[in-house]
Amino acid sequence: MRIDPAFLATSHATGELPLCLVRLQDDARFPWLVLLPRAGGAREIEDLSEPARAQLMGEIIRAGAAVRAIGAAQGRPVEKLNVGALGNIVPQLHVHIVGRRADDPAWPGPVWGFGRAESYGPEDLARAMGAAQAALGIPGPRP
Amino acid sequence: MRIDPAFLATSHATGELPLCLVRLQDDARFPWLVLLPRAGGAREIEDLSEPARAQLMGEIIRAGAAVRAIGAAQGRPVEKLNVGALGNIVPQLHVHIVGRRADDPAWPGPVWGFGRAESYGPEDLARAMGAAQAALGIPGPRP
Repeated sequence: MRIDPAFLATSHATGELPLCLVRLQDDARFPWLVLLPRAGGAREIEDLSEPARAQLMGEIIRAGAAVRAIGAAQGRPVEKLNVGALGNIVPQLHVHIVGRRADDPAWPGPVWGFGRAESYGPEDLARAMGAAQAALGIPGPRP
Repeated sequence: MRIDPAFLATSHATGELPLCLVRLQDDARFPWLVLLPRAGGAREIEDLSEPARAQLMGEIIRAGAAVRAIGAAQGRPVEKLNVGALGNIVPQLHVHIVGRRADDPAWPGPVWGFGRAESYGPEDLARAMGAAQAALGIPGPRP
């Protein structure tokens, strides 16, 4: 599957679900996963087949649980999930699942385009990836 | 069904789908529908039953077609759909479906929290509502 280079620069391969690749957004300000459906050329959710749309909905729910797990592992429980499919900048279909708190820097506005990402340090990255993978029940990406 | 007063102040009743009330956001800058699932107390998509989640996905697709119809009726065809479930400000579960263009004022950033809404005039409102209702195949809200 082709992955737009923009995702490689801004996120870390975290695992694979039946429909989507899961990537952890490299922004320690927010627990944030990105789902990339394996659907060549899709830009909009409507470009997916009906079964794939249903599968995407299920994987959004699973990713929400994983985002909550990341927040819990950081000692910052998620108070609200934000789910967004925008694609104004990177056309390849992708869905953001972001954990929000009333004390996060962008609250109550959206995270997209807000300030500058703060990369994870190695320990925090491993903790977040581990929490997400455990919640998703996946071993992590193939090497 | 209880509707948070925030929606009444910022959008117009446009019709009813099997799961969701459909409202037109009163912001002529963007073709923009809001889906309100009939699900008492739900704040997150995960709060819906599995059948309701699948129904929501179907209604998101229908709303996307309606948003495209609004843009076409305005002579400003939609180039990209933005779908978002945020709820940081108004907790009642709702999903935004917004039609975007590279020449719209917020592009490529998100619309949420961007500038001030510009209310529709009566003729433009009727045109947008009519286009949405025709695309959704619904007669409009009950009086």
